[in-house]
Amino acid sequence: MENPFDDTYFMKKALQEAEIAFEKGEIPVGAVIVIEDRIIARAHNLTELLNDVTAHAEMQAITAAANFLGGKYLHNCTLYVTLEPCQMCAGALYWSQISKIVYGASDEERGCINLKTKLHPKTKMVGGVLQDEASQLLKRFFIEKRNLN
Amino acid sequence: MENPFDDTYFMKKALQEAEIAFEKGEIPVGAVIVIEDRIIARAHNLTELLNDVTAHAEMQAITAAANFLGGKYLHNCTLYVTLEPCQMCAGALYWSQISKIVYGASDEERGCINLKTKLHPKTKMVGGVLQDEASQLLKRFFIEKRNLN
Repeated sequence: MENPFDDTYFMKKALQEAEIAFEKGEIPVGAVIVIEDRIIARAHNLTELLNDVTAHAEMQAITAAANFLGGKYLHNCTLYVTLEPCQMCAGALYWSQISKIVYGASDEERGCINLKTKLHPKTKMVGGVLQDEASQLLKRFFIEKRNLN
Repeated sequence: MENPFDDTYFMKKALQEAEIAFEKGEIPVGAVIVIEDRIIARAHNLTELLNDVTAHAEMQAITAAANFLGGKYLHNCTLYVTLEPCQMCAGALYWSQISKIVYGASDEERGCINLKTKLHPKTKMVGGVLQDEASQLLKRFFIEKRNLN
């Protein structure tokens, strides 16, 4: 039997978080952190609501997962995030020594790949999982925002 | 009359924060954020106490300053931090659009300069202010830590 807990399964959970951000008027990015097929942190972007540039989904998820684990290192954990992490979030993930990062849509301008943010040698990163869903949600957000202004 | 509120004055305040971190057994890094010669945020590294890799002095100071200002952008603000910011903190400072960063000691291995983290075009950065005091404190911390283990 196939394992139902694949990357698509968990990215859908991250997308649900992104949709909650959308409904709150936040740039719709969502994240979950998983250990042994179990979600230990869920978060979505809250930079507007909290007036805080550090309140990206990933940052909150890292803090929540470390709190759950009782330790600051996210060994054996996987982060699922709907958008490629920025320099700040990739920098935080470097410190966390997380095992794996799975992202959805690419962010060519502000993402960590083109900006060459250093990841921890223990960290693997893959992208493109449900990228169409993630980028459609972002596009819809910016179109609606433009129409409101 | 000379302005007493120069870079050395505020870096001393950041060093006081670093000393508080030292006393708590944290890697001694401190930060303050200043607007119009007024300190609006003080913070020190709390990664061990909070079990949270994101709890660098700068990150907490950014959040506190934005909270004080009631807005997420740190225009016209200067961050004084005793150690060159890492990728995560420089990435957060990028989003904050802070006007100026003044750091003490350099961090050649994990600092944002050698790792080429992108800063906002509005941000100026200078280093080396009270660098000896900042690096002596760090050295003393690691020597004491080594002797304890």
